[in-house]
Amino acid sequence: MVGGRRELPFRSCLLGAMSRLGKFAQTSLPINDYAKRSITSELRVRALMERGKVLASQSPSPPRILVVGTGAIGGFYGGKLAQAGARVSAVCRSDYKVVCANGIHINSVWGDFLFKPERVVSDVSEYGPPPDYILVGLKVLPEIETAGMIKAVVGPDTVIVLVQNGVEIDQPVARVFPDNEIISGLAFICVTRTGPGRVEHIDFGRLVIGRFPAGNSDRAEGLAELFNNVNVPCEVTQDAVTARWRKLVWNAPFNPISVLGGGLDTKAMLDTPESVTLVRRIMEEVCRIAEAAGHPLPSEVVQQNIDGTRKMEPYKTSMLIDFEEGRPMEVEAILGDALRVARRHGVAAPHMETLYTLLKLVDRRTLQTR
Amino acid sequence: MVGGRRELPFRSCLLGAMSRLGKFAQTSLPINDYAKRSITSELRVRALMERGKVLASQSPSPPRILVVGTGAIGGFYGGKLAQAGARVSAVCRSDYKVVCANGIHINSVWGDFLFKPERVVSDVSEYGPPPDYILVGLKVLPEIETAGMIKAVVGPDTVIVLVQNGVEIDQPVARVFPDNEIISGLAFICVTRTGPGRVEHIDFGRLVIGRFPAGNSDRAEGLAELFNNVNVPCEVTQDAVTARWRKLVWNAPFNPISVLGGGLDTKAMLDTPESVTLVRRIMEEVCRIAEAAGHPLPSEVVQQNIDGTRKMEPYKTSMLIDFEEGRPMEVEAILGDALRVARRHGVAAPHMETLYTLLKLVDRRTLQTR
Repeated sequence: MVGGRRELPFRSCLLGAMSRLGKFAQTSLPINDYAKRSITSELRVRALMERGKVLASQSPSPPRILVVGTGAIGGFYGGKLAQAGARVSAVCRSDYKVVCANGIHINSVWGDFLFKPERVVSDVSEYGPPPDYILVGLKVLPEIETAGMIKAVVGPDTVIVLVQNGVEIDQPVARVFPDNEIISGLAFICVTRTGPGRVEHIDFGRLVIGRFPAGNSDRAEGLAELFNNVNVPCEVTQDAVTARWRKLVWNAPFNPISVLGGGLDTKAMLDTPESVTLVRRIMEEVCRIAEAAGHPLPSEVVQQNIDGTRKMEPYKTSMLIDFEEGRPMEVEAILGDALRVARRHGVAAPHMETLYTLLKLVDRRTLQTR
Repeated sequence: MVGGRRELPFRSCLLGAMSRLGKFAQTSLPINDYAKRSITSELRVRALMERGKVLASQSPSPPRILVVGTGAIGGFYGGKLAQAGARVSAVCRSDYKVVCANGIHINSVWGDFLFKPERVVSDVSEYGPPPDYILVGLKVLPEIETAGMIKAVVGPDTVIVLVQNGVEIDQPVARVFPDNEIISGLAFICVTRTGPGRVEHIDFGRLVIGRFPAGNSDRAEGLAELFNNVNVPCEVTQDAVTARWRKLVWNAPFNPISVLGGGLDTKAMLDTPESVTLVRRIMEEVCRIAEAAGHPLPSEVVQQNIDGTRKMEPYKTSMLIDFEEGRPMEVEAILGDALRVARRHGVAAPHMETLYTLLKLVDRRTLQTR
């Protein structure tokens, strides 16, 4: 691992774990067992720390990380990595001047903090020698070609971390950089960019990361340790693709229905028996597609996601926020890509097809009236 | 038939038929063959007239007709029946004073006209002796109980004409009035109430009427003749229930998608291959439900409806107008009732189910924010 480890006082670590355990027990995040496992591994880290086996990093140079797509996700997790001691720089376009001058202010339920990037650049080409990690927090839209955007700054040892929604989004990047390690990242977080250099972290924050397409990864372990060191629960999975499908079980119903149902939060979407049935049908379709694609999910995942969401504080999805602000929505990442997998495997997904077509019409209309 | 027939000059009748034939040839209304049949029967009427067999009515008293639900549909067709010589009265609530004072002004592509009801009442109980026909133009909403609303004025010989959307809407009325003739009516028209006492007729106008649930009806024939006499194409069907399903083939996709797609007219709904596919899937579901319910539709009806709509002037559906004006939408009439039939017969209709659930959520949201 490229270092940056810092020893955390036992008390704050335990309190962090306990408060998160309490939080998850109360709110039952969609993929609850992940959370529990994450906390378990953190308690294991604490035990190791007690035994003096985990020490402050002796690494001479903390990792250099470049955040591409410094919106809510990139700003928040980039800032957390900076807190953990990494040398984090950020690519900013519209927010360039503000972030140069003042950094990114993050109002967080975990405690407010300021993220002052080591460097702020308006294009990756200005960054200099390739970083150890590129953290991609870009939205997944057809017009955004991730590989092309980062090409100028990817070195032979650069790890590309895609903290993005969707399935089958890693392959196009892996194809362009066949010799680089790709890490798929999934953020279970409620975080919003509220203005230039301003991010609001409202709830949750857990990460699941893993080498794409599968397997062990020291670099993923290293990144997870950085996150865990600053109390961001981060689990390393050996099956990143299945983790993507698993997150889609939640995203595929709730994001589209929040928009198409007339602007609804999670509570409103689960308020009628009809809408719960629709949510369930869509989740079942995702499970069937995932299974056909060779990534079966445990059968209880549907009920767990519904129960977990019911216990959450009412939450406005990212797709609804995009829609309300007249921005393009992640229609392909949330539905289109999965439906193409469905067609490839001959799996019927009529509920998802209906949502997909309606969202494409809405998206088109938004672009026309902008 | 309770009379009211008037002889029309040959020239105006022929011109009417020709201009409509031209119009339908150009626009290919969704159920094109109906239109053609209607025109054929009108030409037959003209031939009879030439032979002197159709004479001015010798009936001493033209029919007394009470319009209940004097909105766009009730105002327009009530006005046409008054033009045809019937004694048409109207139940008006919010528009009562305006209609009493000035009648209903109808701006029509067929020529503007004023509908001065014989009497304007604010409740059916004020009307007096039961009419020959009650023309119901009410919207089909769960909170509107048609039978209860007209009960006070239904006499033993009163015919109840339901010019309304939906399937299975006639049965509840027939159950309350088992000895009265019920006529199902379907209006293929683009007409809008633009204000108190104001109706805008933008396109089309054809009617299909028929005795519920099926069979011959002198009263339906009489009503059709009144309409045809004032150049409203009106066809009498012996299978009213099938006609309702046939109209639903158009309504079930286009009304919901116009709202859920972000406010689209018919042209926008057929602008992408995905949306045409969705329209087709929904039409096919309606056909499967209709068939299971014992009312099979000809196989070409789906393609006819798509082709016909493509040729129409871009048209804003009634559901979209209701939505935009913050009024409740006919969700049950357009989808809910058909889906209950589907469930009864074990027919899967996942595309319609998705639209239905989304519309119910939107409708609920509209009511909450009103």
